[in-house]
Amino acid sequence: MSRVLILSKNASEYRRLIDAAGLPGLEKPAAAVSPSEALALGEDFDVVFGEPALIRDVLARLRDLRWVQATYAGVEPLLDPSLRRDYLLTNARGVFSSLMVEFVFGYLLQHERRMFERYRAQQEERWDASVTGSLRGKTLGLLGVGSIGAALAGTARHFGMGVRGYTRASESCPDVEAYYHGSRLQDFAGGLDYLVGVLPNTKETRRIVDASLLKQLPIHAIFVNVGRGSTVDESALVTALQTGKLAAAVLDVFEQEPLPPGHVFWHTPNLLMTFHTSAPSIPGDLARLFIENYRRYAEGRIPLHAVDFEKEY
Amino acid sequence: MSRVLILSKNASEYRRLIDAAGLPGLEKPAAAVSPSEALALGEDFDVVFGEPALIRDVLARLRDLRWVQATYAGVEPLLDPSLRRDYLLTNARGVFSSLMVEFVFGYLLQHERRMFERYRAQQEERWDASVTGSLRGKTLGLLGVGSIGAALAGTARHFGMGVRGYTRASESCPDVEAYYHGSRLQDFAGGLDYLVGVLPNTKETRRIVDASLLKQLPIHAIFVNVGRGSTVDESALVTALQTGKLAAAVLDVFEQEPLPPGHVFWHTPNLLMTFHTSAPSIPGDLARLFIENYRRYAEGRIPLHAVDFEKEY
Repeated sequence: MSRVLILSKNASEYRRLIDAAGLPGLEKPAAAVSPSEALALGEDFDVVFGEPALIRDVLARLRDLRWVQATYAGVEPLLDPSLRRDYLLTNARGVFSSLMVEFVFGYLLQHERRMFERYRAQQEERWDASVTGSLRGKTLGLLGVGSIGAALAGTARHFGMGVRGYTRASESCPDVEAYYHGSRLQDFAGGLDYLVGVLPNTKETRRIVDASLLKQLPIHAIFVNVGRGSTVDESALVTALQTGKLAAAVLDVFEQEPLPPGHVFWHTPNLLMTFHTSAPSIPGDLARLFIENYRRYAEGRIPLHAVDFEKEY
Repeated sequence: MSRVLILSKNASEYRRLIDAAGLPGLEKPAAAVSPSEALALGEDFDVVFGEPALIRDVLARLRDLRWVQATYAGVEPLLDPSLRRDYLLTNARGVFSSLMVEFVFGYLLQHERRMFERYRAQQEERWDASVTGSLRGKTLGLLGVGSIGAALAGTARHFGMGVRGYTRASESCPDVEAYYHGSRLQDFAGGLDYLVGVLPNTKETRRIVDASLLKQLPIHAIFVNVGRGSTVDESALVTALQTGKLAAAVLDVFEQEPLPPGHVFWHTPNLLMTFHTSAPSIPGDLARLFIENYRRYAEGRIPLHAVDFEKEY
């Protein structure tokens, strides 16, 4: 018999969805929206499902803890070396892929079709029949090829694009035509039409998108970041955009979130921002992932998407 | 031995591309950018490749004419019943599909991701983390399922969407899950999330998108027209947008092109316009189509994409 704690801003919705699944050996899960509310419900939970930053604050007290399922892909709050690591941590993967794909290709197409420029022409009653660009035949470079990168690669191939991937070691996605690792980062970036960052926040990815990497991109290239803000040298990116060395950038993630007022990004030319919304969490998708993983856990199998505390993802 | 006339604003580029192919039995083709220039080169051409409106003006004089390859999909200028029809007319198909697909899905994603709204938030230094929409699970209705419609259906399926098709009779595209014909137009439109018009200009398609059809769409629906402007009752569309009965429309084609100054479309709310540029002609693609079809013609086989003068497409 498991004792499950749901610790999330969406706790009541998750509880409803999980109850509806009628999971074996699971008594009605406890649901809390804050660490203090959670601890008031008990400390003998072996399973926790919820947001990493909330779970961090109850972690030391849960003496029976065996498994944590995060509702996010990014689990930085739980990776602090001072915290315990004597449990299985799984994160949310797969569930964000289709939304990320729509986000990235939406913005690539917006760029090629010059939608903002066309709209200005419309406002000025100007019939602007200038020829716009297309994705077909262009080359996309993926910084990181996990489940999201693989989904992006599949859609890029659907649109007739070439795909390169930069990864630590894996070469498992067949839609990536050329893989690059380690010191071959500059080769990877040379001549790309689109650079898309899908990297987690780790020691090794910190500011990987820096001035020397950006210099490899042609001036017509665009950079899209849906990974983590820490992977980008923000001032190098601003310089590249201000000096016309990069055609455009689309950022959904930032070193500091929410982005502070007065930050240069708000008004940097050819920079479009969204607000950590490229793949909003859909409770139904995340509950489905938890339910699938709980079944594995209950049957003694290993839940999917284990995080390696050393690799940090 | 064929006598080929290229009659197009891109005549010199087409001649260069066709010369480079070294086609058998083809002496150096004549190239002209206007009807008068063409007739000064002779009248004994059996093959003409070019723009329909230019070809119309030389049609009566070409006594040896056997085959016309249009550089456009729309061949209205050659369909006037007073003109001769004693030759094979083929139009441009297939070459526009991938560009049309990028256009339509670019604008659908722009709508779901509220790109203009997000940009306004950025300009106001406002962290707008409201949740946006997605394509997955939505239903796309295709008014017309020729080569472009089929390509749109394939991409819709790639994005996890449902697809309905309204056609005269054909049901050949496997990515369309439900077909509708004839009087079932209202059933076809009922409950669609996206209605995309890909119809040619014929007697039967004239103003097919009218008030009663638009009324079938939910108020969150959007309408995209990349077919012909004549297929839309423009004032009914304006009314639907002005009264909030339709969330948005994206129009690339119009009854009158260029759209006249002062036309209500320029400033209709939630209407985005482009300027007959959804699938710009790429000379290399069209030359490749001509070369393929010329080989068929020279070998006595039938060139691809014959236009039926009665059906008007």
